[in-house]
Amino acid sequence: MADDAQHPHDASATRATAFAPGEAPQHPGPRDALTDVTGLRVGHARRFGDGCLTGTTVVLAPEGGVIAAVDVRGGGPGTRETDALDPRNLVQHIEAVVLTGGSAFGLDAASGAVAWLEEQGRGYRVGPDPAQVVPVVPAAALFDLGRGGDWHARPDAALGRAAIEHAAGTELNAPVEQGNTGAGTGAVAGGLKGGIGTASLVLPSGVTVSALAAVNAAGSVVDPRTGVLYGQYGEVCETLAQAPPGPGTGLPSPGPDTPDPDSPDPDFSGPDSPGVPSPDAHAAAQRRLAEARTASERRSAASVRPPLNTTLAVVATDAALTRAQAQKLAGTAHDGLARAVRPVHLLTDGDTVFALATGDRPLAPEGAAADPVFGAHAETGALNEILAAGADALTRAVVKAVLAAETVDTPGGRFPSYRDLYPSGSPS
Amino acid sequence: MADDAQHPHDASATRATAFAPGEAPQHPGPRDALTDVTGLRVGHARRFGDGCLTGTTVVLAPEGGVIAAVDVRGGGPGTRETDALDPRNLVQHIEAVVLTGGSAFGLDAASGAVAWLEEQGRGYRVGPDPAQVVPVVPAAALFDLGRGGDWHARPDAALGRAAIEHAAGTELNAPVEQGNTGAGTGAVAGGLKGGIGTASLVLPSGVTVSALAAVNAAGSVVDPRTGVLYGQYGEVCETLAQAPPGPGTGLPSPGPDTPDPDSPDPDFSGPDSPGVPSPDAHAAAQRRLAEARTASERRSAASVRPPLNTTLAVVATDAALTRAQAQKLAGTAHDGLARAVRPVHLLTDGDTVFALATGDRPLAPEGAAADPVFGAHAETGALNEILAAGADALTRAVVKAVLAAETVDTPGGRFPSYRDLYPSGSPS
Repeated sequence: MADDAQHPHDASATRATAFAPGEAPQHPGPRDALTDVTGLRVGHARRFGDGCLTGTTVVLAPEGGVIAAVDVRGGGPGTRETDALDPRNLVQHIEAVVLTGGSAFGLDAASGAVAWLEEQGRGYRVGPDPAQVVPVVPAAALFDLGRGGDWHARPDAALGRAAIEHAAGTELNAPVEQGNTGAGTGAVAGGLKGGIGTASLVLPSGVTVSALAAVNAAGSVVDPRTGVLYGQYGEVCETLAQAPPGPGTGLPSPGPDTPDPDSPDPDFSGPDSPGVPSPDAHAAAQRRLAEARTASERRSAASVRPPLNTTLAVVATDAALTRAQAQKLAGTAHDGLARAVRPVHLLTDGDTVFALATGDRPLAPEGAAADPVFGAHAETGALNEILAAGADALTRAVVKAVLAAETVDTPGGRFPSYRDLYPSGSPS
Repeated sequence: MADDAQHPHDASATRATAFAPGEAPQHPGPRDALTDVTGLRVGHARRFGDGCLTGTTVVLAPEGGVIAAVDVRGGGPGTRETDALDPRNLVQHIEAVVLTGGSAFGLDAASGAVAWLEEQGRGYRVGPDPAQVVPVVPAAALFDLGRGGDWHARPDAALGRAAIEHAAGTELNAPVEQGNTGAGTGAVAGGLKGGIGTASLVLPSGVTVSALAAVNAAGSVVDPRTGVLYGQYGEVCETLAQAPPGPGTGLPSPGPDTPDPDSPDPDFSGPDSPGVPSPDAHAAAQRRLAEARTASERRSAASVRPPLNTTLAVVATDAALTRAQAQKLAGTAHDGLARAVRPVHLLTDGDTVFALATGDRPLAPEGAAADPVFGAHAETGALNEILAAGADALTRAVVKAVLAAETVDTPGGRFPSYRDLYPSGSPS
């Protein structure tokens, strides 16, 4: 009724670029990695063996820094310089973010990144001399103490420096190592080996949204009822809807995209068309996981009760976001964690997501803001698509971390990988 | 190594009551409803027809009130008295929470609840006369303007009074009406009819955790790739793993729990063992949904661009939580929304979750705190289980809302129900 007065436009005329939320067609970027947001570099450093199983990952921004924000939603966070990211606060741009193992002790890794940035003259300028900079390096730590056997083996400033130097030495848009590396070196998720994973999505607007996760959760990434990765539910259902299963198996045949139909194990299709493990395969995997947990409990680190954890992540985009918009992105990216890890954000997790925006692309298409009635909404829609993609990219990054992780067996515990427990379900 | 000094106990001896996070066996309460937390009552009131399609839901606490908290994570919230719920602030107990349609205008419904509570002498006592009370009634609104055709048809104080009177007139532990009622009357989720849903879980400790949702989302509750409800992914995979599908169908046979193996549509099993719709059934449903959207766009309300929404929820427990613990529960319950709605927490959602704790049960088992090393952790583990269950109960409440919703066709739009689009997938 009065609607006409309030919405004089033909609504259909204003929808040229609009998709229903979450329905914008997307595809991964060239590397399917955080570095698909041009300018961001990733460096890893780790300590492995001789009681060590820990490491540090640095995301290095282009010189001059990027917009950055954070949302801490775990109940046991370990962070440094996160208050500086409040959009009300002074520093506008951030040169680097540090994710690290070592719990509260591992925050020392940030010192190495700070020192390196100071040497480069990079940071918040506070004096007339260009060397008078204060690098504000937000950092968050995950709990991996004792997982290599030595309770005191933790990242330090030297490891943080190694990680930022590694990042600085990479090419633009370089591939990013996944699995047991960097901050994911000692990561464990629900008894399974966790690690580093990364993914990206390119939106119809051309904006790229990417994510990197160090997966180390009190909850599980695997549905204990079936062995399906929570973050792959949708792909599993899609496979099942599209590919008629063979008779009497309870399992899908390989989907049409599976490269090798003569795959040695018919129980599981390839990574592009994951299926449901057979009940026998799942039961066997559950037994092996329980055995590993028991073995770990007899060693040092895994006796920590309740298990302490934390998934850390960075989501990034090349869109121009304000600091407040970046904070919103960090918050909704946690939804991607919720879909890949269950339960999540517990008291015993310190789950923390940083958001970075390089600002190379306008948020909304040019001219969109000129619409007299719906103009402001063009930006809303564009940001909504980025928010949705941030969560989706982070879900995929968690899945890729779990699929890339490798079994480790140390004096601190035995942490089997998903690939080892469900060998035919892992990607090449 | 140094671990022994820090953890002198045999870890296995301290795990008598501990489950891995999320793995505690649970079952729904007697009503599978919010009211399984004894003392909480639910009342609905709605306006339907003659241009109206909106309503209000009140959750009424026992006299004297309960611990309450809120976490607002949507980008477009409409709330009242939520600042009072900050654990640092004065008022300790809340007599009622209002969920309402009508966007910002609908917040007037809270006035009716406030007036009724004042008449009962219930609220925060501010003077020597017992009648000198100020009822603090937190409220949140969802966007349903114009969905019945009349842009100005909104809940008001009278409707809020009707809802709280309805609640007050119910028995303890009464069943709760779901679907197109109360605040869910005009709710729509991704073009599908939304509504009210409720669920509960009883933990091994005996603690009950329950949830009620008014599902009205910019994102979708249905995976557009397959027609599977996001919130039922796990059950679908479980069905598929347990029940070998028939040859050549791509679909599961009904699971062992399905009551009627001669169900008219073999494509879909019962609600306890949901399956994947056939590609044909899904394509037909998608066509019908697109037609409904087009029809709605020619009418008044659905021309709102971008679509405005908001899912509102209450999670509750009979455990004794502090206000800060209740706030943590409200926050992690949003993970349950993330698993059932994708994307969620957008700028165009005002997603808000209230948490209520009646305090009838201790949080941690008696004597648990006496453990010299792990004592404090008994409470951590107990709260973690409640946090996990809160998210799970809310996911189930969203699913039940969608399955209970009924198609409506008004001058404001055509909003088909999931049951109508996927008729054989709906529960009895």
